[in-house]
Amino acid sequence: MSGTAPAPFSADDYQARMERAVRAAGDAGLAGLLVAPGPDMVWLTGYSPPADTERLTLLVLTEDHGPVLVVPALEAADAAKATGAPVMTLRDWTDGQDPYAATAALLDDGGRFGISDNAWAMHLLALQRTLPGTSYASLTDALPMLRAVKDKAELELLAAAGAAADAAFEEIRTVPFGGRRESEVAADLAELLRRFGHSQVDFTIVASGPNGADPHHEAGDRVIERGDMVVLDFGGLKDGYGSDTSRTVHVGPPTDEERRVHDLVRAAQEAGYRAVRPGVACQDVDRAARAVIAEAGYGEHFIHRTGHGIGVTTHEPPYMIEGEEQPLVPGMCFSVEPGVYLPGRFGVRIEDIVTVTEDGARRLNDTTREMVLVD
Amino acid sequence: MSGTAPAPFSADDYQARMERAVRAAGDAGLAGLLVAPGPDMVWLTGYSPPADTERLTLLVLTEDHGPVLVVPALEAADAAKATGAPVMTLRDWTDGQDPYAATAALLDDGGRFGISDNAWAMHLLALQRTLPGTSYASLTDALPMLRAVKDKAELELLAAAGAAADAAFEEIRTVPFGGRRESEVAADLAELLRRFGHSQVDFTIVASGPNGADPHHEAGDRVIERGDMVVLDFGGLKDGYGSDTSRTVHVGPPTDEERRVHDLVRAAQEAGYRAVRPGVACQDVDRAARAVIAEAGYGEHFIHRTGHGIGVTTHEPPYMIEGEEQPLVPGMCFSVEPGVYLPGRFGVRIEDIVTVTEDGARRLNDTTREMVLVD
Repeated sequence: MSGTAPAPFSADDYQARMERAVRAAGDAGLAGLLVAPGPDMVWLTGYSPPADTERLTLLVLTEDHGPVLVVPALEAADAAKATGAPVMTLRDWTDGQDPYAATAALLDDGGRFGISDNAWAMHLLALQRTLPGTSYASLTDALPMLRAVKDKAELELLAAAGAAADAAFEEIRTVPFGGRRESEVAADLAELLRRFGHSQVDFTIVASGPNGADPHHEAGDRVIERGDMVVLDFGGLKDGYGSDTSRTVHVGPPTDEERRVHDLVRAAQEAGYRAVRPGVACQDVDRAARAVIAEAGYGEHFIHRTGHGIGVTTHEPPYMIEGEEQPLVPGMCFSVEPGVYLPGRFGVRIEDIVTVTEDGARRLNDTTREMVLVD
Repeated sequence: MSGTAPAPFSADDYQARMERAVRAAGDAGLAGLLVAPGPDMVWLTGYSPPADTERLTLLVLTEDHGPVLVVPALEAADAAKATGAPVMTLRDWTDGQDPYAATAALLDDGGRFGISDNAWAMHLLALQRTLPGTSYASLTDALPMLRAVKDKAELELLAAAGAAADAAFEEIRTVPFGGRRESEVAADLAELLRRFGHSQVDFTIVASGPNGADPHHEAGDRVIERGDMVVLDFGGLKDGYGSDTSRTVHVGPPTDEERRVHDLVRAAQEAGYRAVRPGVACQDVDRAARAVIAEAGYGEHFIHRTGHGIGVTTHEPPYMIEGEEQPLVPGMCFSVEPGVYLPGRFGVRIEDIVTVTEDGARRLNDTTREMVLVD
C-alpha cells in the first residue's frame, strides 16, 4: 500500500534524506536513483502527485547534479508546493513532449540505476529504450534498507500511530460482535482509527470463525456468532506513518483447543519479539516465532512470513522471512505477527509493531495479548 | 487512477475478453500478455487483489495454454472468488518461493510480451533477469486500443455513470458557494456522487478564482468569494465504470471577459464534439477544439490535451492529442475537455464524456454547458 499522507518534516529533513540516498546509491555501485510517486517519493520529498498515471513524474537523484523532479506541467504548481520543493529542481514537461528524453538527458548512458519497486513498467521500458546502455535494479533489490532505519522523529510518529491503534482496540473490544456482520465491525474499526487520528485506513480485517483461517480475508457479510474466534487486523497512516495491529478475540467463552492455539500463537509472538536485537538476522526472528508453533505440531498451519517493515507505508522491507540475512539495526521497525490457520475452523494471529533498540526491542503498540472475550 | 470496483459481468464475458486479448496480441506479433493488478486485470477477469504489493500477482495470457493467474497463496482464496476465476487456472505461490520462476515456466524465452503499463518495475526487472531472451512492450504501446472500444453493456454502464454525474451537478449548483471553502464544496460533490451510485470517487476538483488557472488544482482551504469563477471537475466509478465531468460556474454575475472566455471554451468544446465520428483521427478532435481557442487569441492558455479515454478507469487511451493518428471507432468513449487558464486570475473548463456512434457522436453526460450562476 502506498503511503501518501503528509508528515511533519522540513525541506532540510528531505534534503538530508536525498543526500543520504545518493551516498547509499554510490556505495551500492549505482549511478543514481529514479524515484516514482509513492512511498519512496513521499519519504524523500514530501511530494505525492494528485494521481499516479501514465504521465511521468520521476525524481532523479545522482551525484552529478542536485535532485531533479521531472513533472507534468499540469502538476508543476502542485509539486512546487511540496515541502521538499525548495531543495529540488522542478523540470516540467507538457503534453506532447517526450518526458523520457528529458529524463535521459539527466542520466549517464551506461550507468546502472536503482528504481522504485512500484515505478510503472511503461516508464521503465521507455527509459530502457531511450538509453539502451543503462541497466536497472529495483530499490528493494539494490537498497532494501534505504527507508528501513527510522530516525527519532519517525520513531515518535510510528509510536503515536501505534498508540492510536491501541486506543482503537480498547474501544472495539467493548462493542457488540455476536449477531453483527464482519463488515459492520470493520466499519466501526475504521471509524475508530480515524477518530484517533488516522488520515488513511489501509485495512480493517474482521475474520470470524472459519474466515479467520484465511489470513487475508478482509471483512464480509458473515454474521458473527457466539463461540466464534475473530481475527482483527487493522492499520493505516497517522501523520504520514503507519500502524498495523492484530488481536484475536473470542465471542463468549472459548473451547480448550481455541485457548490452547491462542496461547501458542501468543508464545510464538513473544518468542519472535524476544529474538529482536541489533545484529540478529531478520530470518532469526521468523525462526524464533516459527519454532514455537512447529514444536507444538502446528507448523504447517503457519503459512506466511513472520513480519514486514513499516514506515510511510504499512508494508515494506525489511521482511522477517527465512532466507533474509539482513542484520537488524537500531531504529528498524517491523511487525511480529505469527498465526495459526485451521482451514474450515478458525484462525489466530497476534501482531505488534516493534522497533529495534540499542540492546533489544520495544513494542510500539501494546494492548494485552491475552485472549479478550467480547460480546 | 486504477479502477477496481466490480462490474456486472459473467465468467463468459471475461473469457471472451481474454480470448480477444490473446488474438489481438498475436496480431500485434506478441507471444502473450502479462496483466498486472489494476484496470487491465479487472477488465479481463473481474479480479482485483486486496492490495497491489511486492507480492507478485500476474495474469499470463498466451496462445499456448489457457489463462493462468499467478497469485500469492495468501490471496488465492480471494482470487478463487473472482467472477473470472472459473475460466482461469490459479497457480499460487508461498512466501519464500520464487514467483518469477513460476511465471517464467509459462513463458516462451525469446518471446516478446505486452505488459500492463502499471505493472511494477520490480516485477518486470525480475522477469527480464529470469528470462533474458524475452522482451517487453507496455500495453499502451503494443495494444493501446485493447480496452478502448466498448461493447453495448459497457456503454450502458458508462451512460449510467454519466447520468449519475449529471444528477450530482444538478444538485451542486443549488448549494451555497460564496463564503465556503473549496474543500467543503468538494466534500458535497463527493457525497452527491456516492448518493447517486458511485462506489468510488476519484476526484472532486473545486478550483475557485485564481486556483482555476491551475488545471489540476484539487480543492483547498480557499474561501470562495462572490465574483469567482469556479471550475468543477468530478468523477469516479459507478458499477465499475467511470464518470468525468467538468463545468465552470460563477458566483453571482460575471464580467464581460469572464462571459467571453466561458463562451469561447463552450464553442471549443462543441467544435471538439462535432469533430467526433468514425475514421477521424484522435488528433483531429484536439485540433478542432484547439483551433477555436487559438483563433480567439487564447491558444497559449489551453495547456493540456483535449481528452482521454474512459472505461473501467477514469483515465486511459485513446488520448485526444496532437500526434495521435489512431482513427476513431464506434464504441470508443473519451472526454472532450478544452480549457483556458489565465494565470493569477481564473480558468474555465467544460468537459463531457462522448462515445463514437456509427455516424457521429453522443454525449454520455449532458447538463447545460451555459454558464451556471451559483450563490
